[in-house]
Amino acid sequence: MPRTVGICTGGGDAPGLNAVIRAFVKHGVRDHGLQVLGIEDSFNGLFASPPAVRELDLVSCQGLLHRGGTVLGTTNRGDPFAFPMPDGSRPDRAGELARNARALGMEGIVVIGGDGTQRIGLRLMEEHGIKVVGVPKTIDNDLAATDMTFGFQTAVDIATDALDRLHTTAESHDRVMFLEVMGRDAGHIALHCGIAGGADVILLPEIPYDPKRVAAKVAARSSLGRSFTLVVVAEGALPKGCEELPAPERKQRLKRGGGAAAVAMAQLDGLVSAEMRHVILGHVQRGGSPVPADRILATRFGVAAAQLVMQERWGEMVALRNGEVVGVPLTEACSSMHFVDPAGPYVATARAVGVELGAPAPDAAG
Amino acid sequence: MPRTVGICTGGGDAPGLNAVIRAFVKHGVRDHGLQVLGIEDSFNGLFASPPAVRELDLVSCQGLLHRGGTVLGTTNRGDPFAFPMPDGSRPDRAGELARNARALGMEGIVVIGGDGTQRIGLRLMEEHGIKVVGVPKTIDNDLAATDMTFGFQTAVDIATDALDRLHTTAESHDRVMFLEVMGRDAGHIALHCGIAGGADVILLPEIPYDPKRVAAKVAARSSLGRSFTLVVVAEGALPKGCEELPAPERKQRLKRGGGAAAVAMAQLDGLVSAEMRHVILGHVQRGGSPVPADRILATRFGVAAAQLVMQERWGEMVALRNGEVVGVPLTEACSSMHFVDPAGPYVATARAVGVELGAPAPDAAG
Amino acid sequence: MPRTVGICTGGGDAPGLNAVIRAFVKHGVRDHGLQVLGIEDSFNGLFASPPAVRELDLVSCQGLLHRGGTVLGTTNRGDPFAFPMPDGSRPDRAGELARNARALGMEGIVVIGGDGTQRIGLRLMEEHGIKVVGVPKTIDNDLAATDMTFGFQTAVDIATDALDRLHTTAESHDRVMFLEVMGRDAGHIALHCGIAGGADVILLPEIPYDPKRVAAKVAARSSLGRSFTLVVVAEGALPKGCEELPAPERKQRLKRGGGAAAVAMAQLDGLVSAEMRHVILGHVQRGGSPVPADRILATRFGVAAAQLVMQERWGEMVALRNGEVVGVPLTEACSSMHFVDPAGPYVATARAVGVELGAPAPDAAG
Amino acid sequence: MPRTVGICTGGGDAPGLNAVIRAFVKHGVRDHGLQVLGIEDSFNGLFASPPAVRELDLVSCQGLLHRGGTVLGTTNRGDPFAFPMPDGSRPDRAGELARNARALGMEGIVVIGGDGTQRIGLRLMEEHGIKVVGVPKTIDNDLAATDMTFGFQTAVDIATDALDRLHTTAESHDRVMFLEVMGRDAGHIALHCGIAGGADVILLPEIPYDPKRVAAKVAARSSLGRSFTLVVVAEGALPKGCEELPAPERKQRLKRGGGAAAVAMAQLDGLVSAEMRHVILGHVQRGGSPVPADRILATRFGVAAAQLVMQERWGEMVALRNGEVVGVPLTEACSSMHFVDPAGPYVATARAVGVELGAPAPDAAG
Repeated sequence: MPRTVGICTGGGDAPGLNAVIRAFVKHGVRDHGLQVLGIEDSFNGLFASPPAVRELDLVSCQGLLHRGGTVLGTTNRGDPFAFPMPDGSRPDRAGELARNARALGMEGIVVIGGDGTQRIGLRLMEEHGIKVVGVPKTIDNDLAATDMTFGFQTAVDIATDALDRLHTTAESHDRVMFLEVMGRDAGHIALHCGIAGGADVILLPEIPYDPKRVAAKVAARSSLGRSFTLVVVAEGALPKGCEELPAPERKQRLKRGGGAAAVAMAQLDGLVSAEMRHVILGHVQRGGSPVPADRILATRFGVAAAQLVMQERWGEMVALRNGEVVGVPLTEACSSMHFVDPAGPYVATARAVGVELGAPAPDAAG
Repeated sequence: MPRTVGICTGGGDAPGLNAVIRAFVKHGVRDHGLQVLGIEDSFNGLFASPPAVRELDLVSCQGLLHRGGTVLGTTNRGDPFAFPMPDGSRPDRAGELARNARALGMEGIVVIGGDGTQRIGLRLMEEHGIKVVGVPKTIDNDLAATDMTFGFQTAVDIATDALDRLHTTAESHDRVMFLEVMGRDAGHIALHCGIAGGADVILLPEIPYDPKRVAAKVAARSSLGRSFTLVVVAEGALPKGCEELPAPERKQRLKRGGGAAAVAMAQLDGLVSAEMRHVILGHVQRGGSPVPADRILATRFGVAAAQLVMQERWGEMVALRNGEVVGVPLTEACSSMHFVDPAGPYVATARAVGVELGAPAPDAAG
Repeated sequence: MPRTVGICTGGGDAPGLNAVIRAFVKHGVRDHGLQVLGIEDSFNGLFASPPAVRELDLVSCQGLLHRGGTVLGTTNRGDPFAFPMPDGSRPDRAGELARNARALGMEGIVVIGGDGTQRIGLRLMEEHGIKVVGVPKTIDNDLAATDMTFGFQTAVDIATDALDRLHTTAESHDRVMFLEVMGRDAGHIALHCGIAGGADVILLPEIPYDPKRVAAKVAARSSLGRSFTLVVVAEGALPKGCEELPAPERKQRLKRGGGAAAVAMAQLDGLVSAEMRHVILGHVQRGGSPVPADRILATRFGVAAAQLVMQERWGEMVALRNGEVVGVPLTEACSSMHFVDPAGPYVATARAVGVELGAPAPDAAG
Repeated sequence: MPRTVGICTGGGDAPGLNAVIRAFVKHGVRDHGLQVLGIEDSFNGLFASPPAVRELDLVSCQGLLHRGGTVLGTTNRGDPFAFPMPDGSRPDRAGELARNARALGMEGIVVIGGDGTQRIGLRLMEEHGIKVVGVPKTIDNDLAATDMTFGFQTAVDIATDALDRLHTTAESHDRVMFLEVMGRDAGHIALHCGIAGGADVILLPEIPYDPKRVAAKVAARSSLGRSFTLVVVAEGALPKGCEELPAPERKQRLKRGGGAAAVAMAQLDGLVSAEMRHVILGHVQRGGSPVPADRILATRFGVAAAQLVMQERWGEMVALRNGEVVGVPLTEACSSMHFVDPAGPYVATARAVGVELGAPAPDAAG
């Protein structure tokens, strides 16, 4: 009798989810005889009655490698521990989930998702005995447990392409052009696309910016005959003075201001004489076919997840460490974030080619 | 002694402007011995003292074919008839422009721009004796005088790519996803990218939409098991009831509402239960390297402009008519716009593959 | 009882085939209640026993718009009139096909294919009473009956992208770089990608070339300090002196020489001192997702084919004429090819920006 | 008085060369006051009389980040130690080079190139006292001294795009389709694009292949109803039995056979009944704008090279090691190649998703 496992995708989608599923099924089914049940819409497919699951065989994986999104569907509202009913009661969804998983013969579940989703998986394991193997997913590449996550490089690609396009229009019109990219807490996408696209200014959540420095950069370029400026803004970037605010207030501040780019433009109002314009890339960044590097990483993760399952290494998450894909404890995986290091190599590279980060270099600040 | 002509680019930039300049210079200089003076920032280079013009020779055209934007620079504030000074006086900029053009030995000027820019050219010719040849430019493809303008197909390409990306993320999250694309008065970009990208709903300035029809489409899809919907919105689209408003009020309505996509989402609020999200593509649509079809059309226009100059057919504009590039009177060129025909072939094609336009087909309405 | 029609794709694949199928099914099934049977591998699915056909409903069309190739499969060996058996006998395949089509209740067949496939369709109609509606397909855009075919613009896009890439490497290495693109009889792809990609030389089947003119162009560039040259060669281009050869000998000549680019390089050997390199793009040109313009044209063709079927206009083929999609008699459709006109506007445009075609302009030749 | 250094690019071009130059100049000139002299065509610009060098300042770096190729030019024939004159004499080019470098005030030279070019640099330093700092360049990513080289990921991207395109045409036509990609000695590009593009078979120089295994894979797919097969072939791949041949004979064998893909097709002749077709991507792989990851790596390398120069760490080469850019001794840099490890993680990943490598897994072979 084949061993049976479930697989689900949680949180925001990222290019490469389908490639993970495909690799897991290909390796698990073909080489190890697993039976794989795809769970729909994060964990929700296991609350539904009847449960919304379907078998994933080799045929169902055809064409998945190139395809964006997730064929399993996903949702940000899939926490079985979280939702009260309209009448205030809290049905025991986690228990129902566990009962359904067992009734379907699932030995465990492969959970592809970000830190929130992994935390749910961990709790299901601890409180309800549901065995899980994790696969990290965050387009922002902000998990400390793994050196890289799939989807990130595709997002950088899309953002850089947008920056390349804004370059020519900014130059033609002598404008200060702002591109707001994803990155609520960590500015990796902004930093990478900014270096790759030749941004003049990069504003990150990790480095509160001084609008005067940004304005000085615009002026300095102008004095060199470059009458346009490209500014990349991560969606969580805020000016100096907000760094002590608690997260919800920062978020509120950004929302009220129309997003990080609009806030930055407002900060520069009066300091800069050129026309300013902004574009918010938004959901475009997480869709479409993954770039080759993400397809490869996702494939490696899917294969490694199948191997963890075969070795019954439940409670571990796959992760990239120094070029190798390994298993790490899920507890560790959920515990810390990976932020842009203001003194790290990418920020230093940006500064070295003349990018203004809105604050002096750390060693120059003292 | 070589004949000398000026060339300038006015209004918003469009992919292909540099390809026009290159073709004009290549044909004019190499084959006809013209001397070409590039005027900076629309007509503004001829107000400046000293005038901001530079000779464009064959070497200066290298690499221009692929390059987005315009090497001459452009501006929306280049009307020599328009600007009062801060003290309310109106300096005779058009006269100054004409004097400078003559002092530089210019026999005439090739004006690459939209209807506004062409109108300025025409007035310069009529009131100041500056001879002009026009090249039409509008990324929206909304000039009646020519069957097609360069830049349009690049914009459709970029918008379709964004729609393809939103497709996978909308599908994964069961969302109603709105993509707002350019098109203040004419919805050609929205209609073309909507057909090409498989949109379920397309909202155009030319067809005031009924939110109930849009909501019914979302519901119908849902009943067929398709729990997501893709909506393309031209930036000038408004719901029924606004069609009689004068243009400034329509514009105001859109601005207050946060743009056409946000207005549409607000209209659907309460009618649709799925999550709704939107993306405004903005300036990304007009930047970057032109697609091959636009490079070819721009090259044809540039060559034809040189031929009009050689034949001293001043007062004409190049235009594509039934596959041929011809010269048409500038007066005609500025007189009418080309809107989406609600009874035309593209709208009919969209309807035939099940796209909801927000209103019944014209023949079905009676 | 619904009317039933078959649909098949024949000859080489082209981007947009699936978009035609999708549009035909969407319009035919949803709006007119047709039952559509997809026939596999050109007409071959109707010889097989049992016949290889499957119903195409709305669900089976999901995702087809963006997808290259054809979900029905195709083959160049699908002529039911052509194939003798190994023992020399000729089974009555066309008769069998007709019997199977009738047994399956097919009122007629929509045939998507090039001139060869359309000719088979016409013969099936004339000799076996199988009603057909045609949809033209040729990536080379060489059918006289229609102003444009889908797939062509995608091929031009891919070839132009390759040319852009070769540009930088040719320039870095001071090489004469040859790109061989599709076009056995008609050089439209070569001409369009050559103009769009800034080729210095374009060699076409329609214009026998003089190697000395090509060498002179290389030398002229060199004397202007441009030490590289980009040459686009259509796969059917041959030097002067071959124009009187019958088609099979031309083909043989090209095959023996290693293809048109290799033949051209051999012709230039001794005339040019720079390093020469070549790339044959081959099948890459016909694969992958269609560009938006091809998706739109294919959608228009699919919708129009459904309308011809509904109106029982059997024996007609859809075609683009002056921007309108119309029906034309199949007999006309198969009767003539559309070649590059050496005196036409695209060749003239190429010459006007300095492209060498390997022969003097027609009016300059007399 | 500013310090003066030369910079040159040698060997085949790779996307990212211009980004290295730009970053070196930006950091060196702006932050450290270097004077940078660009040497044309590898070292050749220093033989010419007068020397072909030009100053690279901040203005000359505008637009370089996105641009493929190298603005300095390059050549495979730039070894000052190698070329005899037609009369057999060997002029002292290296000595001349050293004299010219000194006469121009160059304190040293930054050499961007592969192992061959670096070896020339090392020899210039050892024999002629020319100080050098190296920047590794190989599109094949086959230098052991650095974990990654720029250009590689762009090549993988282009090759994967081609494979995606061939996928749809192979599927439509039931063909075995071969894609030959770069990789004379090391198969990294083939392996990465093969995993990313979903190849069924990958043939590498490092793993001599058994044609019977490849044929068995084709047959196995066919029995599962997949009637097409995608084969990626590195240009140095050969069947079993050639592994003991010396390099020149292997090369000869490939050349005679029409390249690695044609050799593989010939090997499968008679073993496979499906139609076989092949495409050789060739120079297209090394041209065009670098992908973001390559722009970033190239920028890091350029900055690091400037830092090595400032710190007078002559005789070192920049290299990526575990995510950090460091300096390593040039002697080490030139001493060993990085091949695909048949027992390494990428080959294992390929096998795990069912890719046939043409030989059993190492541990399965015993």
